[in-house]
Amino acid sequence: MDGMDGAGESAVEKITTPQDKLTSMLAEDMAAVNRLIRQRMASEHAPRIPEVTAHLVEAGGKRLRPLLTLAAARMLGYAGDDHVKLAATVEFIHTATLLHDDVVDESQRRRGRPTANLLWDNKSSVLVGDYLFARSFQLMVETGSLRVLDILANASATIAEGEVLQLTAAQDLATDEAIYLQVIRGKTAALFAAATESGGVIAGGDEGEIKALREYGDALGIAFQIVDDMLDYGGSDVVIGKNTGDDFRERKLTLPLIKAVAKASPEEREFWQRVIEKGDQREGDLSQAMVILQRHDAISACRDDALAWVQRAKSALNNLPVHSLRGILSELADFVVSRVS
Amino acid sequence: MDGMDGAGESAVEKITTPQDKLTSMLAEDMAAVNRLIRQRMASEHAPRIPEVTAHLVEAGGKRLRPLLTLAAARMLGYAGDDHVKLAATVEFIHTATLLHDDVVDESQRRRGRPTANLLWDNKSSVLVGDYLFARSFQLMVETGSLRVLDILANASATIAEGEVLQLTAAQDLATDEAIYLQVIRGKTAALFAAATESGGVIAGGDEGEIKALREYGDALGIAFQIVDDMLDYGGSDVVIGKNTGDDFRERKLTLPLIKAVAKASPEEREFWQRVIEKGDQREGDLSQAMVILQRHDAISACRDDALAWVQRAKSALNNLPVHSLRGILSELADFVVSRVS
Repeated sequence: MDGMDGAGESAVEKITTPQDKLTSMLAEDMAAVNRLIRQRMASEHAPRIPEVTAHLVEAGGKRLRPLLTLAAARMLGYAGDDHVKLAATVEFIHTATLLHDDVVDESQRRRGRPTANLLWDNKSSVLVGDYLFARSFQLMVETGSLRVLDILANASATIAEGEVLQLTAAQDLATDEAIYLQVIRGKTAALFAAATESGGVIAGGDEGEIKALREYGDALGIAFQIVDDMLDYGGSDVVIGKNTGDDFRERKLTLPLIKAVAKASPEEREFWQRVIEKGDQREGDLSQAMVILQRHDAISACRDDALAWVQRAKSALNNLPVHSLRGILSELADFVVSRVS
Repeated sequence: MDGMDGAGESAVEKITTPQDKLTSMLAEDMAAVNRLIRQRMASEHAPRIPEVTAHLVEAGGKRLRPLLTLAAARMLGYAGDDHVKLAATVEFIHTATLLHDDVVDESQRRRGRPTANLLWDNKSSVLVGDYLFARSFQLMVETGSLRVLDILANASATIAEGEVLQLTAAQDLATDEAIYLQVIRGKTAALFAAATESGGVIAGGDEGEIKALREYGDALGIAFQIVDDMLDYGGSDVVIGKNTGDDFRERKLTLPLIKAVAKASPEEREFWQRVIEKGDQREGDLSQAMVILQRHDAISACRDDALAWVQRAKSALNNLPVHSLRGILSELADFVVSRVS
């Protein structure tokens, strides 16, 4: 636990969010993670690599996933430094998936721009993403823990499978809550769970502790993504903000819509078929969608689900030793839904 | 070595290439590899995955890399079955890199086609490639060998780094033979070397044998890629065939051009700057390029280099036990350059 308390106390007055508290309590560990990230991101042979990753990996990122790994390990009294490698691993995997998501998302946004530009970005995003995956792989091998490798290999497969599943499920009104759960486990929860579980494994936790850490990460990740998907429809506000409706415009079937589709009247069903399945969207459709969501209490049903996952995350923590970090992880779970309360 | 000889002898009359001989001698092992590939390629949740990979991974591929892994392990008397997992791993990595290369190459070829189509392919190629990487990662973890994991992690990093390097080096006349070597190590030789070396490690070979296998794979891969790049300019023929000039048109600076650029007169240099750096290509430029290559004996200098690498590959084999498979690996090295002799 060396070095965590000093930094935490001196900065205590400026602290607002649980994530800020984690960052502060784990300041020395995070500094080591950031050093390692910068060092391993470099490429002797290909200077384009740090160019592409700099804005993603350098300062600015929330670093939530590595904080989870560090917190899990420290909470179980870990005194080594392999948790730093794991934390960097997890951040590299996260960054790599962002780069690969860019290929999908940027391509759509840049539809009107010169193809050469588009291609260049695609190439760099795909290949630099692959490079970060490979670097993360090297880092985890350095920990020498086959169990950690197994956890991260399985998480990688779940992530990729979830992303592919989303390709086919997103615009299909038959997509139900079970499929949605698989998609967001891949998109978000699998890496959260691997982050906390691997931290526990590297710290030599017992089976009960490791299971609790995995369950915490999984439930936190699911709550986090449900809230994110709610916010895309304005969260609890019924006001259309500037980011409202991105998923709607991209015809991405997320939990709010899935809940509304399940309760749809025949006319509403026709509406969803037109705007989501056929992608024939017109002026006023987003407002209309939000009226339908309100009619079926879809957003508040999502909030209930998110709260239930937060409760699961917090219950899992009960199987872990009492520790200041445990308290903050519990606050973090509450904080996740506070964005829509 | 169970099961290898029977299949080999019955098919001996139809056998022509060293690769056919390997396929025949390792028929039972390869059948197990193919079963494992089909099994692990499947995805319970995302049926799009086998759709995308089927044409790449199913029958039809040359399977050269898995054959190298199997041959390396069997040559050292390996009697277990982890080499089958490694062989499938290597094929998955190869297929994943092909899928990611598609994003780069298909995008260019399909320039005139509807964007939605293009995007769909990009998405699937990127994400299914990631899925295959993750599956390969799971397979190698199952072998329980940290050393094998280390070899494959390093190979993955070299592959990705080489691909990124190629992005920036390809259209730059300052690219020299040293950079070219790094690029093709990433593109081809790193996985060949990892295929043979990991086969040796799983078989419990001694350090000399493992080093010899790595050197063989590396040199074979380099020779293979040099020959491929020569063939793009018609190989030893001075005739323009139907596939001649793809690299030229894509402004990819490969060994033949690098050798010609190094000896270029001022006028030739201007030509190369126009067609490669500026990409201003006109009718007759390919013929002109081939005349310049001939003038400087660039193709025959490439063949000399390829032959030297073949010699290195064969010399490395001398540090391995006498074995029928060793003889075929030696023939395979000769066969690689026979395409341009």
